[in-house]
Amino acid sequence: MQIPSVYLEQAVDQLGSLPGVGRRTALRLALDLLKRSDIEIDDFVSALSALKDKVLRCSSCGNITDTPICGICSNPRRDATIICVVEDIRDVMAIESTSTFNGLYHVLGGLISPMDGIGPQDLNILSLPARIEKDQPKEIILALSPTMEGDTTNFYIYKKIKAFDLLITRISRGIAVGSELQYADELTLGRSLQQRQVFDFGQ
Amino acid sequence: MQIPSVYLEQAVDQLGSLPGVGRRTALRLALDLLKRSDIEIDDFVSALSALKDKVLRCSSCGNITDTPICGICSNPRRDATIICVVEDIRDVMAIESTSTFNGLYHVLGGLISPMDGIGPQDLNILSLPARIEKDQPKEIILALSPTMEGDTTNFYIYKKIKAFDLLITRISRGIAVGSELQYADELTLGRSLQQRQVFDFGQ
Repeated sequence: MQIPSVYLEQAVDQLGSLPGVGRRTALRLALDLLKRSDIEIDDFVSALSALKDKVLRCSSCGNITDTPICGICSNPRRDATIICVVEDIRDVMAIESTSTFNGLYHVLGGLISPMDGIGPQDLNILSLPARIEKDQPKEIILALSPTMEGDTTNFYIYKKIKAFDLLITRISRGIAVGSELQYADELTLGRSLQQRQVFDFGQ
Repeated sequence: MQIPSVYLEQAVDQLGSLPGVGRRTALRLALDLLKRSDIEIDDFVSALSALKDKVLRCSSCGNITDTPICGICSNPRRDATIICVVEDIRDVMAIESTSTFNGLYHVLGGLISPMDGIGPQDLNILSLPARIEKDQPKEIILALSPTMEGDTTNFYIYKKIKAFDLLITRISRGIAVGSELQYADELTLGRSLQQRQVFDFGQ
């Protein structure tokens, strides 16, 4: 497919660089933008430019914020003795929406992945020991995805912080609530048997 | 899901306004952009800005172009006596890639759709009679999608140009090449029987 405009081609290339957007979809998006008024395109473009200029990372936890310290870290009603380590802001949003956690977060910004060339120095990991030394939390919860990258990152963090006098926990793995046992994969089902818990009617 | 940054929220809203992009996908795209360097975001944003400033519509056929007259209309080897009416630039690209058409195009920029509030005055339709009067083509091919909107638009254009002394044709409808008869819908199969053609070994 030959696009008859160099500028449209460049816009398609840029939109196609977004994750999950192929060339055909990128063309559809670019043509949709082309139909918009000048003011609408200005609004669109300036909202994306603001990502570069205005969006900050919390200097304490690494979460995305508009202020130097994020709303969670600066909230005096949150329990500063528990820090939950997560991969990125979407995990913070997911955990916040459960309303079951009142501690603080530490947002890594990704997982260690040698395949993709992502090492600890590319992530917000090395600031965690310094933060623990300064803030003296009682517990660190590792809430990373149960994937190979997640496990690698868990292990790396564990090694870095095990010398501190604190509890290191990991979110539980097992059968998802509401799912059927027969469709669970062997690994998950096996682990969930090994890590069985005392029955408690309240839970 | 509460996004902890007003500016990220605005970027998600704008990306979510693109066709086929929901809120969750928009957040993924915005976070991908957030990870990029300043130069990369500048390139991205300026490519989209260029859509507004640099991309033109051909003053003859309405196709997208960087020059006042598009490459097809200004090509002296194209047959100016046949004009193929299409919905948008993607149809031009699709027909060009078949290498079976050497005439010119007339790009409507959409189809008449009362449901979406799109009338003939919103499209590049009313310039067609003027173009026919000026350029005196011998044939107009209606190559719109065989949908209700396409048929409505076909009929509207037919009424507008039937007074001219020219041949008005429509692309054929029928069973797609390579598809199986048993899976064709009744309407398509019925029409393809009614509009059967004399068997010709060459085609």
